[in-house]
Amino acid sequence: MALSRRRLLTSAGIGAAGVGLGAGGYLLGHDAAEADAAESTGSVPFYGAHQAGIATPAQDRLFFASFDLETESKAALRELMEEWTKASVEMTEGKMIGTYTGNNTELAPPEDTGEAVGLPASNLTVTFGFGPNLFDRPGLGLAAQKPAALKPLPSLPGDELNLLESDGDICVQACADDPQVVFHAIRDLARIGRGTVAMRWSQLGFGRTSSTTTTQETPRNLFGMKDGTANIKAEDGAAMDKYVWVDEGPAWMRGGSYLVSRRIEMILEVWDRSALQDQEETIGRQKYSGAPLGEESEFDPLPLDVKGPDGRPVIPPRAHVRLASATENDGVRILRRGYSFTDGVDQSLGELEAGLFFIAFQKDPEKQFVALQRKLGQFDKLNEYIRHVGSAVFAVPGGIEPGAYVGEGFLS
Amino acid sequence: MALSRRRLLTSAGIGAAGVGLGAGGYLLGHDAAEADAAESTGSVPFYGAHQAGIATPAQDRLFFASFDLETESKAALRELMEEWTKASVEMTEGKMIGTYTGNNTELAPPEDTGEAVGLPASNLTVTFGFGPNLFDRPGLGLAAQKPAALKPLPSLPGDELNLLESDGDICVQACADDPQVVFHAIRDLARIGRGTVAMRWSQLGFGRTSSTTTTQETPRNLFGMKDGTANIKAEDGAAMDKYVWVDEGPAWMRGGSYLVSRRIEMILEVWDRSALQDQEETIGRQKYSGAPLGEESEFDPLPLDVKGPDGRPVIPPRAHVRLASATENDGVRILRRGYSFTDGVDQSLGELEAGLFFIAFQKDPEKQFVALQRKLGQFDKLNEYIRHVGSAVFAVPGGIEPGAYVGEGFLS
Repeated sequence: MALSRRRLLTSAGIGAAGVGLGAGGYLLGHDAAEADAAESTGSVPFYGAHQAGIATPAQDRLFFASFDLETESKAALRELMEEWTKASVEMTEGKMIGTYTGNNTELAPPEDTGEAVGLPASNLTVTFGFGPNLFDRPGLGLAAQKPAALKPLPSLPGDELNLLESDGDICVQACADDPQVVFHAIRDLARIGRGTVAMRWSQLGFGRTSSTTTTQETPRNLFGMKDGTANIKAEDGAAMDKYVWVDEGPAWMRGGSYLVSRRIEMILEVWDRSALQDQEETIGRQKYSGAPLGEESEFDPLPLDVKGPDGRPVIPPRAHVRLASATENDGVRILRRGYSFTDGVDQSLGELEAGLFFIAFQKDPEKQFVALQRKLGQFDKLNEYIRHVGSAVFAVPGGIEPGAYVGEGFLS
Repeated sequence: MALSRRRLLTSAGIGAAGVGLGAGGYLLGHDAAEADAAESTGSVPFYGAHQAGIATPAQDRLFFASFDLETESKAALRELMEEWTKASVEMTEGKMIGTYTGNNTELAPPEDTGEAVGLPASNLTVTFGFGPNLFDRPGLGLAAQKPAALKPLPSLPGDELNLLESDGDICVQACADDPQVVFHAIRDLARIGRGTVAMRWSQLGFGRTSSTTTTQETPRNLFGMKDGTANIKAEDGAAMDKYVWVDEGPAWMRGGSYLVSRRIEMILEVWDRSALQDQEETIGRQKYSGAPLGEESEFDPLPLDVKGPDGRPVIPPRAHVRLASATENDGVRILRRGYSFTDGVDQSLGELEAGLFFIAFQKDPEKQFVALQRKLGQFDKLNEYIRHVGSAVFAVPGGIEPGAYVGEGFLS
């Protein structure tokens, strides 16, 4: 029985921990578990028809990790996913992982590393995905389970990929409204996975760059522009069904989605030297209001066919919003859920390395992200200011019910 | 006249920006500036007897940058500090930098990069410091102004320093309760400084690890331990005067302090394999309550002289809290103001790189941080789990009044 991280710091919890020095272990009974349910504000259910962290209102902070499997044992992978599921449920409920003991004479390491003790669930979601290479490992015997839509992304125009920041067998997307909570989640899952998986790359995202519900204000990316105004909103069930949720392929992918991540460096020093006019024409929106050029308000439709007094389109031909619009892409849309990042200084330039960790969910990567990026990578005026340096694709299975574990559909 | 970032998004601001396409520039009058004052919640005054960001209650997020001067012109450095001061005042007031124009036909780059538009001041503080090497550059002619207490830190036991993550001529510590606000501050100061300074290193801190006032709950570091329980609290004016605020040396340092930063990597995979007992005896405190071993509550005094039934000290001889305690260091104390960080994966190990970006303020680095670290670096049991990889020291001048600029005391 896992203990609430916040309850641990009530007088009961502290008292027990305080006198725990040299005393017996401290285990939690049923009463406290019931009390947890009453203080569950700010927690997102792990179980459901879909994995949480896709349609969930985009939380403020991200920690994303990609792992490589270090074993060819299907049983070991199954055990890992069982343990990861259990720990994720506990963390999303704001509980400590495993069985809590405040017994100082305990000679085993604590099951929970403890840095989130005292912090609420903070709307943590933990979303798991599986990369194409996982299904090709001969020892695992998963080839028959590989979804047809799960293929490595092809080379795309403008790619400058670093393979060490790309791909991976399993991804974990942890999102929450507290960065310590997302760090704790990835750190403890990595700890549980030691010996079975090694972390290949990770990305801390300090601020969301997308809204995924109509209730959220559109945030700004590091170019200072409102980003994702035209994003799919989770309340639009028809759009979610049409563009995001998978309804074909193996049964375990029904209700799932495909996650494409792209680490996109933003060349801030060049952007910052561009005139406001250039910035706005690059995107196709006004910088401060977010309104399309020539319009008044952020959510006004893009005037793609309108020409200005000079006879030229108000939204330039190579403007990002035009090239990315559903209208000019046979209606194709994706659900974006990205985050801003910075990784310090590029010491060869003395400039900040920063950008957008792009995450998109979709029903079919080839028909959606790949089709869009083929066009954007070639023509988007924004390419003067960005570099795609990391890339990955993962199959995100549908949701599970209590008693099941993520991946059970292809591992059992 | 700088425009409030939030007011820009009111109907007046947006309307003007909306119709600003092709229309004249949009400048703000006196009325709006007065309105700003009324919505100043969450802003920390830049001006005062001390620089903000030292005694200020520790905000949740940090972005710290160290710059190298690329000129030997004192006039250029003076101009930089004038511009940096002006921009910092605007940002800490939640305003856009410079003169706002929503005029899309403007051919100059915006003076403010815009990613904090719509965000409040978020208790932003911007704190400037100057490294010892700055005063040794012959072209600047500042040698006579160098404080005697400002010396490069000596080699310390256990140092594994990377010089590219150490030192620097000027540091900027930006702290706020929103990471986008601290990113914006450093990014825009770097932009203003282009050609005069180059960024040498930077550090994003995602969560505070110290309380600096009695009103703040003690946070946990990435070892899951409450950190900084015995920290100096800003309300303790006598301690601040005794240990933090400088009252000798050049006039411009009066009311200032010396900032020591140490990038401390935490070897999480080793810590996480240690028994709870080992973890608690390494620190000398109980993990969950934060109480000293053998005591009940976090703020109970350390029982340094108490022995257990086995005849051994309850707080082990090499426990961190014992070795760092004022009692065992001739009363020496420092004001800690550090942050947790993660910089992704150490790919040679497949493990997370993470740790504590230690920041301490003190009256005299040699007598305070250096004396403490000489002992800790040699004996602290915690050394099995940490590595000091970055180090810097900066003279942080006293506060200024409106009309002055930071550094004026030695640059005018």
